Amino acid sequence: MEALVLERKDELSMREIHLEEHLGARDVRIALRRVGVCGSDVHYYVHGGIGPFLVKEPMVLGHEASGEVVEIGSAVDTLAVGDRVCMEPGVPDPHSRPTRLGKYNLDPAIRFWATPPVHGVLRPTVVHPADFTFKLPQSVSYAAGAMVEPLATGVYAATKAQIQPGEVALVTGAGTIGLVTVLAALAAGCSKVIVSDVQEPKLELARQFGAVTAVNIRSQDLAQVVNRQTDGWGVDIVFEASGNDRAAAQVFDHICPGGRVVLIGMPGAPIAYDVLAAQVKEARVDHVFRYAHIYPRVVAMLASGSIDVAPLITATYDFADSIEAFDYARSAPPTAIKVQIQMP
Amino acid sequence: MEALVLERKDELSMREIHLEEHLGARDVRIALRRVGVCGSDVHYYVHGGIGPFLVKEPMVLGHEASGEVVEIGSAVDTLAVGDRVCMEPGVPDPHSRPTRLGKYNLDPAIRFWATPPVHGVLRPTVVHPADFTFKLPQSVSYAAGAMVEPLATGVYAATKAQIQPGEVALVTGAGTIGLVTVLAALAAGCSKVIVSDVQEPKLELARQFGAVTAVNIRSQDLAQVVNRQTDGWGVDIVFEASGNDRAAAQVFDHICPGGRVVLIGMPGAPIAYDVLAAQVKEARVDHVFRYAHIYPRVVAMLASGSIDVAPLITATYDFADSIEAFDYARSAPPTAIKVQIQMP
Amino acid sequence: MEALVLERKDELSMREIHLEEHLGARDVRIALRRVGVCGSDVHYYVHGGIGPFLVKEPMVLGHEASGEVVEIGSAVDTLAVGDRVCMEPGVPDPHSRPTRLGKYNLDPAIRFWATPPVHGVLRPTVVHPADFTFKLPQSVSYAAGAMVEPLATGVYAATKAQIQPGEVALVTGAGTIGLVTVLAALAAGCSKVIVSDVQEPKLELARQFGAVTAVNIRSQDLAQVVNRQTDGWGVDIVFEASGNDRAAAQVFDHICPGGRVVLIGMPGAPIAYDVLAAQVKEARVDHVFRYAHIYPRVVAMLASGSIDVAPLITATYDFADSIEAFDYARSAPPTAIKVQIQMP
Amino acid sequence: MEALVLERKDELSMREIHLEEHLGARDVRIALRRVGVCGSDVHYYVHGGIGPFLVKEPMVLGHEASGEVVEIGSAVDTLAVGDRVCMEPGVPDPHSRPTRLGKYNLDPAIRFWATPPVHGVLRPTVVHPADFTFKLPQSVSYAAGAMVEPLATGVYAATKAQIQPGEVALVTGAGTIGLVTVLAALAAGCSKVIVSDVQEPKLELARQFGAVTAVNIRSQDLAQVVNRQTDGWGVDIVFEASGNDRAAAQVFDHICPGGRVVLIGMPGAPIAYDVLAAQVKEARVDHVFRYAHIYPRVVAMLASGSIDVAPLITATYDFADSIEAFDYARSAPPTAIKVQIQMP
Repeated sequence: MEALVLERKDELSMREIHLEEHLGARDVRIALRRVGVCGSDVHYYVHGGIGPFLVKEPMVLGHEASGEVVEIGSAVDTLAVGDRVCMEPGVPDPHSRPTRLGKYNLDPAIRFWATPPVHGVLRPTVVHPADFTFKLPQSVSYAAGAMVEPLATGVYAATKAQIQPGEVALVTGAGTIGLVTVLAALAAGCSKVIVSDVQEPKLELARQFGAVTAVNIRSQDLAQVVNRQTDGWGVDIVFEASGNDRAAAQVFDHICPGGRVVLIGMPGAPIAYDVLAAQVKEARVDHVFRYAHIYPRVVAMLASGSIDVAPLITATYDFADSIEAFDYARSAPPTAIKVQIQMP
Repeated sequence: MEALVLERKDELSMREIHLEEHLGARDVRIALRRVGVCGSDVHYYVHGGIGPFLVKEPMVLGHEASGEVVEIGSAVDTLAVGDRVCMEPGVPDPHSRPTRLGKYNLDPAIRFWATPPVHGVLRPTVVHPADFTFKLPQSVSYAAGAMVEPLATGVYAATKAQIQPGEVALVTGAGTIGLVTVLAALAAGCSKVIVSDVQEPKLELARQFGAVTAVNIRSQDLAQVVNRQTDGWGVDIVFEASGNDRAAAQVFDHICPGGRVVLIGMPGAPIAYDVLAAQVKEARVDHVFRYAHIYPRVVAMLASGSIDVAPLITATYDFADSIEAFDYARSAPPTAIKVQIQMP
Repeated sequence: MEALVLERKDELSMREIHLEEHLGARDVRIALRRVGVCGSDVHYYVHGGIGPFLVKEPMVLGHEASGEVVEIGSAVDTLAVGDRVCMEPGVPDPHSRPTRLGKYNLDPAIRFWATPPVHGVLRPTVVHPADFTFKLPQSVSYAAGAMVEPLATGVYAATKAQIQPGEVALVTGAGTIGLVTVLAALAAGCSKVIVSDVQEPKLELARQFGAVTAVNIRSQDLAQVVNRQTDGWGVDIVFEASGNDRAAAQVFDHICPGGRVVLIGMPGAPIAYDVLAAQVKEARVDHVFRYAHIYPRVVAMLASGSIDVAPLITATYDFADSIEAFDYARSAPPTAIKVQIQMP
Repeated sequence: MEALVLERKDELSMREIHLEEHLGARDVRIALRRVGVCGSDVHYYVHGGIGPFLVKEPMVLGHEASGEVVEIGSAVDTLAVGDRVCMEPGVPDPHSRPTRLGKYNLDPAIRFWATPPVHGVLRPTVVHPADFTFKLPQSVSYAAGAMVEPLATGVYAATKAQIQPGEVALVTGAGTIGLVTVLAALAAGCSKVIVSDVQEPKLELARQFGAVTAVNIRSQDLAQVVNRQTDGWGVDIVFEASGNDRAAAQVFDHICPGGRVVLIGMPGAPIAYDVLAAQVKEARVDHVFRYAHIYPRVVAMLASGSIDVAPLITATYDFADSIEAFDYARSAPPTAIKVQIQMP
């Protein structure tokens, strides 16, 4: 089949590739409809690897996807041919200890699309377990369906934070993950979200989401804004979504006594962590790794309108123009949030 | 001062009453602006008591209130004359064990407005501790400010439920408490709320709140609706807000495995509780008693627009017409939700 | 193979029975060493069924078991031939939604030994999934290994209660489940456990467990004891383990403000539940259904000596005398706690 | 009165000091009986300050104390003259926001004994609020009563960790705080505790506590021990009690997927914190600052015998020899854990 293949660092091609596609009893075959370009896809393109995951063989990219069911396995009773769906890109070993505990995202044996040596889905069809394939209601477009994956990260982080209705959150970083976290925090009950970044177009977008105070730390003092917005008490929660080591090191400055922190961003090296600052406020720090058991709730939130992801999709390319899409994403203009690819 | 006094069961009068009003160092004096009529006020009017609380002496009614600060005690530094405020009607003993544990609503010695022998606030001014008086931002009207008290019950119940974003809730009962719970559950992250009642106007109002399925159990099978809306899995949470013993007895029919129940309504007698039905789903049942530490978050939600209480205020009377207001509330027309009194 | 077969209500026989025993890749074959007689086994013997579970075909009894691995499937790498083990009697559908959420005990399709139509293990060997088979260290005897099943109920209830170290618990009921709950509550950090029953020998046994106050409610006022032991504050947790409807109805009398209740016992009919009594203390009520993910922790507690179950095993019979063992258990003398059967 | 006064860095004297001692309505006057020497006392002696807290005026040392009530205020009804008691050394502002939320230990205005400018209790009597004074049962000695303060830190950390019965913990550091945390973790339900340090006498002491594996990291590989003790899964909880920056930086190496960390030790500078290592296991990190609401539970645990602190008290001096006691503590021999002073 025709696919977008990362041949090696810096080299993409649209070409035929032979992929084994056995349909098991609990699987479905899906025709891809929309695929988002993720920062990790671009990272593999630019660097040829992420940490220990190196691209040694040609690999199909893409893991943020929606599609249409075109064939179902003999034991599948939750989906039917013609269903519009989105898919979790990671499939764990059902027998691993984390999976059985309900924490399948922590299974080291998880197979994740477009993570070497597992192929991604910038291709016409894919076979996937029905248990990790979720029906989209008519009101949720394929474009929105392909946003469920990044949005899942934000909603999962909001879930971990155990937000109480009316609390105030700070999100550091207004990239895709920061912005979906802002949306998730608002939908999860925050009365107000402060978001910080250095790129004005991203902050400008965040301001359109509602009760958001967007802070450009190039020109504004974040601590002052937090103080003013919380009468000097501090925010209830900080979501660190920038991966920037300085932002991560300062999270305890901004929280209130008893406040919580969720570290979502992935700094390139260990950060300087001020234990005493965390202790005097008895901070609770949670970490997230992708997400688990969250897709049905994210789809429900899109369906009910409590989250609208349309403003985040800032460019769409045809599948034939996938390389162009990646080169655009690679150039990272500040006005670009999510680039998607429309499948044939 | 002129006040609305419940002389005894069935007898209200607007008359002068002498009330001791010493302003302590940590107190403020407030000119009342808006006072809501609560079901408990009406219950005292009709029955002369609630459970062990009997009206033995004439008592001023009213405890859902907003106002303006007109004088501050010497140690008050969080409020100023002219501040627009709302007030918690219950003031606990600061030295009781529940209070020190942060659970002041469970202090048996709490003094609560319009609960014998404590006077309420249908009168020109009241002295109140600054710690239980909360500033209203300009965007929150006095009418909305006087709704903070009933809304607090709903937001507190939603807090207890530990809602995860995207969950589905059922609220049984669409009276004032049921409706504020619907609003709170949506604002706290539910993607969908099912609400049941027998009075169509109340259900009709609920339908205007957004992702709400309103069920008239006179004509519809609630279990069927729950099944349909949740693909047979059950709701994540039931908020029982009717106080009806049959509704309370059926909560476990509607929840999913691992689901939660919050019992808000106060049935007149013990209910029939099916332990086995709760066990096979490992239900967690929480109970709420008024609220604690919730006013600042409720005010923030009104200020941010995440909850709009205006549709719940269905009638407003002048203070001079307070008796008329109570007689209207007592007649309980199905279109009446919250009756408020505009103070002079 | 030779097995103890419940032919029908009131009729047991020791006889040959043909049982299909296919060893799958992830299974082990176990030679049974010790099997406990559970109240449910006796109930099937006496009544021919429990609720909807009716004995329509002859069924082998027994589900509290330890044994020795005699054969392993091709994919098993956690166990070896010769390992001493205990086994969870319930095996869920790995693909059900509760199982995937980590709550496999709530899977309605769970297959549980000696629950019609699934055979139990009073027989020489059984094939079982390795994932539900747990190695016993040398220091844990087969007799103790066969106690892991009932003990799991107590430890799981203690886990649900989220005991804080030093809290005080009340356990109502001193049968096997009540007693293992007392042991679990002490091992889980309670500084003191009050236990109530009407049978003196059981209370006498409980008194040997350490910081236990055993109350015979025939002669003592439980509320008075609770008050005295807690300076009038109430216990932090009530574990209801009697299944008695009056005991279950009174749980809220005994807890402190903010206290918790775990309902373990299974009353025959709905209980009278005092919602207001629960509300004024904001009780949290949890329910347990068997247990999940608890065997490794229970085995570890037996191995470390933090729980000693030896005193609970009050009679042991040879496999050949199984019918005698059941008739003794059926007679329910107050001095009998756990009857076990020594397999050949 | 005669007191042990820290005149300035390096200079202690036993001398008369005039201390204001007004007995308020809610206070009691206590004759000190036993006072422990804390690392912070010694730190003030050696360094003249801790962080921002500088000894600018002569200050009485000592904050781990037990005593006897000799006078009670007019509103005190929970204590009587002659009661044997222990005392929390920190008294918060009852009106601060953290205090009202039940988190009084986070109140920045808390007044803590022997923290400049507040005097400690190495002196004959002290006046203290009854709410922070706790009765000792006859079975708890004054020596044990003076251990409640350091023990409270361990029990509070164990409470934060939300230990499930049977879990396995690692405590890094076997100083006083490490050792009380080992005791607390065992009493709170851990089936096994691994503890690491470099001083053999401290590890030897820990081995006497029961199910403890004590690791000298000078000669053993801690990661290997953790692997062996947990079959490669990792411990459920790490309590970092050394304050050593390398130990703090390695906590995520030792936990299991979904594991928790409690940071108790106070490193002198920010630590290197590996966010990615925490993320792949979704660690939850809690921090503790002293303790709150824990004294009654600690006293109950001492009374029930679930914790025995006697082995930790390795030296006792008469009050007259207080300076000698401090010089011994300052020399920090590896066999010394807790030095106490017997008051006259």
